[in-house]
Amino acid sequence: MKTDMTLNELFELCSNRLEKLLPVYLRDIPSLDLKTAMEYTLLNGGKHIRPLLIYATGSMFAAPLENLDIPASSVELIHTYSLIHDDLPCMDNADLRRGKPTSHKVYGEGMAILTGDALHTLAMQIIATHPSPLTIDKRLRMIAALSQACGPYGMAAGQALDIIVMNDDTISEDLLLNIYQLKTGALLSACIELGRLASKDDDEIHQRALKEFGNYIGLAFQIQDDILDIEATSEALGKHQGTDAKNKKITYPKLVGMTTAKEKVQSLYQQALEAINFMGHQAQILRELVEYMLERGR
Amino acid sequence: MKTDMTLNELFELCSNRLEKLLPVYLRDIPSLDLKTAMEYTLLNGGKHIRPLLIYATGSMFAAPLENLDIPASSVELIHTYSLIHDDLPCMDNADLRRGKPTSHKVYGEGMAILTGDALHTLAMQIIATHPSPLTIDKRLRMIAALSQACGPYGMAAGQALDIIVMNDDTISEDLLLNIYQLKTGALLSACIELGRLASKDDDEIHQRALKEFGNYIGLAFQIQDDILDIEATSEALGKHQGTDAKNKKITYPKLVGMTTAKEKVQSLYQQALEAINFMGHQAQILRELVEYMLERGR
Repeated sequence: MKTDMTLNELFELCSNRLEKLLPVYLRDIPSLDLKTAMEYTLLNGGKHIRPLLIYATGSMFAAPLENLDIPASSVELIHTYSLIHDDLPCMDNADLRRGKPTSHKVYGEGMAILTGDALHTLAMQIIATHPSPLTIDKRLRMIAALSQACGPYGMAAGQALDIIVMNDDTISEDLLLNIYQLKTGALLSACIELGRLASKDDDEIHQRALKEFGNYIGLAFQIQDDILDIEATSEALGKHQGTDAKNKKITYPKLVGMTTAKEKVQSLYQQALEAINFMGHQAQILRELVEYMLERGR
Repeated sequence: MKTDMTLNELFELCSNRLEKLLPVYLRDIPSLDLKTAMEYTLLNGGKHIRPLLIYATGSMFAAPLENLDIPASSVELIHTYSLIHDDLPCMDNADLRRGKPTSHKVYGEGMAILTGDALHTLAMQIIATHPSPLTIDKRLRMIAALSQACGPYGMAAGQALDIIVMNDDTISEDLLLNIYQLKTGALLSACIELGRLASKDDDEIHQRALKEFGNYIGLAFQIQDDILDIEATSEALGKHQGTDAKNKKITYPKLVGMTTAKEKVQSLYQQALEAINFMGHQAQILRELVEYMLERGR
């Protein structure tokens, strides 16, 4: 993959690759209903922030595109599974996602749970089995990084804490940020590591700096989501605005106030940029991605 | 692992190993509520049929015990995740499991879904990361076998088909058996393969024969479950008898009649034994396990 990619080239590459690849993994699923339900949410034009992070980091280290396709697809499968389960009536109870009715609205709750489960397993299956030049060592390290980030030591724990403290307005800022780190930061941070793992880079200083970068943008991204849920229109969000308030959920802007929350987003992205500052021109694409992510909140 | 194990020794070894190991994987989960909910169903005295198949097959090929612990634990995590999701109100709507209230009855539906999700990811995570003498090649092949068996090309597809055809009494016997193969057979069959993978055996004739064996016992096991749901007491089942009938579910005994269904169980176990007949004394422990599984239905 070429190393001096522009942001627009990255966007185009990412959506082209995923559009071509995602349907391939689903092709021979023996239940047509399950396949259709999986496609419905998976191919519904997500923003692909997570795969973008993977391709961007991979391009920094000249990773072969074929090595990036697998973790990029896998993370999109995991993200989609988590959206479907989050939207269920017993979780966020969301009717709309990306401007269309959510999975359980179309296929029923039982089928939506299964659809999420199937996407979840498939994410691991393609890393373990899909043909690519990736070595078995790299594949196993990718499964390790991904499962660590999305299971009970990462995203699932964040979601559980989210349910437990949902209505507790005595929660501390530190605990709330810790939940955000588990719920959103861990998987975003893993994307950066997956992109690096797809390359030949084995510099521990890079690994540590990129992990720090990933953690900062993960937190910033989640706080932005909370801000958008308050300030954006339902049309711009593709889902009903005000879902958090409806669910009486304590979010960061509710806890510290909107002004402080917006300042926090700025400062987190700033800290992210500082963490990779020493990488100079090599990290340019990540800076442009941060600029794009900041734009999302304006 | 010693190769001339009796069935009682196998039972004892399996429950001792799992009792010791399963809590270890959950030890440092950052949400205490999630950890507690995972333990509640995972450590609730299951029959451990799937881990038993792994240890039994491993013992046939003198696999090191430490190599068998990981797939045995992993499969128990996957099985437990599938039970928690199956029991949900929008699926089988079951209140009791192993004589105790089901996960969603105790922790709520949202938490039960997350608990299943967390067990699901953890199953993959421990194969990828838990220390053991297993090579990376074997670990990756185990994740491949397990994800193939429990994802959209196996169990998840079977479950989806189960939902779709649930009330269709024009379903053919072949299609129903195909659903059983996906829903139950694939994972049971994968257990046999995981046990063999933990050893040094690389004989393709063994692999094929054991796969055939696994498929037959998988079908037999599922039909037995349906029979028990009609004939056993709730007390013996540890769950409410008649759940299938309550859910108006088409099952094998309902489709072909009880007598034919019971004959089918006998003949499937017979075919399973024939598939491994050529393995002589080496396969003795599997024969004893079949005898034990048959006993379950009497």
